[in-house]
Amino acid sequence: MKKTVTAFAPATVANVGCGFDIFGFAVAEPGDIVRVTRYDGHGVRITAISGDEGRLSQNAAENTAGFAVLRFLEEIQSDQGIEIHLTKQLPLSSGMGSSAASSVAALKAINHLFENPQPKRKLLEIGMAAEALACGSPHADNVAPALYGGFILIRENNPPEIIRLPVPENLHCTLIHPDIEIKTQDARNILPATVPLKTAVRQWANTAALVAGLYRKDLDLIGRSSTDHLVESRRATLIPGFDEVKQAALDSGALACSISGSGPALFALSASLKTARKIALEMGKIYTRHSISNQVYVSKINCTGARIIHEE
Amino acid sequence: MKKTVTAFAPATVANVGCGFDIFGFAVAEPGDIVRVTRYDGHGVRITAISGDEGRLSQNAAENTAGFAVLRFLEEIQSDQGIEIHLTKQLPLSSGMGSSAASSVAALKAINHLFENPQPKRKLLEIGMAAEALACGSPHADNVAPALYGGFILIRENNPPEIIRLPVPENLHCTLIHPDIEIKTQDARNILPATVPLKTAVRQWANTAALVAGLYRKDLDLIGRSSTDHLVESRRATLIPGFDEVKQAALDSGALACSISGSGPALFALSASLKTARKIALEMGKIYTRHSISNQVYVSKINCTGARIIHEE
Repeated sequence: MKKTVTAFAPATVANVGCGFDIFGFAVAEPGDIVRVTRYDGHGVRITAISGDEGRLSQNAAENTAGFAVLRFLEEIQSDQGIEIHLTKQLPLSSGMGSSAASSVAALKAINHLFENPQPKRKLLEIGMAAEALACGSPHADNVAPALYGGFILIRENNPPEIIRLPVPENLHCTLIHPDIEIKTQDARNILPATVPLKTAVRQWANTAALVAGLYRKDLDLIGRSSTDHLVESRRATLIPGFDEVKQAALDSGALACSISGSGPALFALSASLKTARKIALEMGKIYTRHSISNQVYVSKINCTGARIIHEE
Repeated sequence: MKKTVTAFAPATVANVGCGFDIFGFAVAEPGDIVRVTRYDGHGVRITAISGDEGRLSQNAAENTAGFAVLRFLEEIQSDQGIEIHLTKQLPLSSGMGSSAASSVAALKAINHLFENPQPKRKLLEIGMAAEALACGSPHADNVAPALYGGFILIRENNPPEIIRLPVPENLHCTLIHPDIEIKTQDARNILPATVPLKTAVRQWANTAALVAGLYRKDLDLIGRSSTDHLVESRRATLIPGFDEVKQAALDSGALACSISGSGPALFALSASLKTARKIALEMGKIYTRHSISNQVYVSKINCTGARIIHEE
């Protein structure tokens, strides 16, 4: 019987420009790490959280990793005592799927600890419930790519219907996180309740075309069809330097650049590692010039999703 | 040198449920037939129109077939005299792409008469200009599938960017036309100027999923993702018996059923010729019971588009 399992779940880019609330993909780094360990007794306790500067609750029920483990144990009707060690490597309220990375890493670890009694589908549902805890609604656009990896279309949230889309081999992502925080709820409140039909038509032309671009491995089509007509301009007002950083990415050869999730992180897509690195450099320069500290990540799309990194 | 050429262009189903203004596909039958013939002299004249009950203008500039030929000759800077014979097999204001079938058949014929000096792209643009003549705006959602065949995504109308999507071999269409007329403009006026963001999200999830369904050859996914959340319920009020006919189609095994273009024609998708025929029978029964005369057509998706049927 396994005693302890450690899992990693990656950061994720939700929305991907045109696909507000329906698209998400995973990157290789950064990600959160969760270790779950059996102890003799009952209850789920969080023994340590690092990397959050003391801001997350150590009460298991108030933390997406702890909540996920509690719900998992309920599902399998186990009263096994579990200790959780959470290593946050994602900044909070970053737009990079921080809460989902924690819950998904916890779910991957706890399921493995019990010899995988639950299908991924069930883990997805628990992860979505944890998202409702973290940001008010059970969205799959970070949880699903963190869990499954790859580029995901969420056709429905309730019940969740997710569709894995193909990912061109040479598609790279640059992710930059400026050290400012945006609450998902604030980023939602800035959106209009209604949108012009004409604009909505352009948006659904683009979500359709982006899917076609992925199947055709047409990177230019992917780039131009990720254009958002509704959300980016409003949310960009919450992100200092957005226009300048986006322009720097496009000038450096990005196929597309927009807000990752509800921000403030930005993502850029490109056709090679070399371009992705150049974009990272130029985006970082802008924030540094504005005296905003920042972290930059470069990777291919992560088609594996959450993974076990240690067990004993 | 060719003296006369006759071409056929098929009926088309625009919108395809979820994809208002962005999707369209062609069927095998019915279609319009245009014969173009050189004469010694100048000018474009329409010598005969059959099947329109005398309702279309015989003034070339006021008829989509004549307009298309005029614009084509302008483009190639020819003053060759051309006689046009138009055989309308599509009912007018039917939602089956009647105006586009006429312009596209004319363009296919006239281009062939001159040994194909113009690429399809240019024919598309002329056909779109003819649509503006017929219904007020240069839409590609009937012209493009009539010209190219297959299932088409129109990402942009100006300038047109069209994307051909794959079509599963066994995807069949039943098209029923009840003998009532809806002006495209009336069907447009019934639409709201703005839509709730939440509803728009569900719609663009479906346009994305429908494209994925076509690539995956997943007929169930194609069926459920063609669901429209915005347009059908409003336009259905213009179509007597809509709910009953749609239900009959679904009860007969249709994957999906909605309004073709702006109506009153309805289309249903299905997975076999047998089912498509059964749907045709049951849909027809409803209209017949309501004493509304109707025409029903069954075919695969037409992946060829407009074609030459005679030359000499």
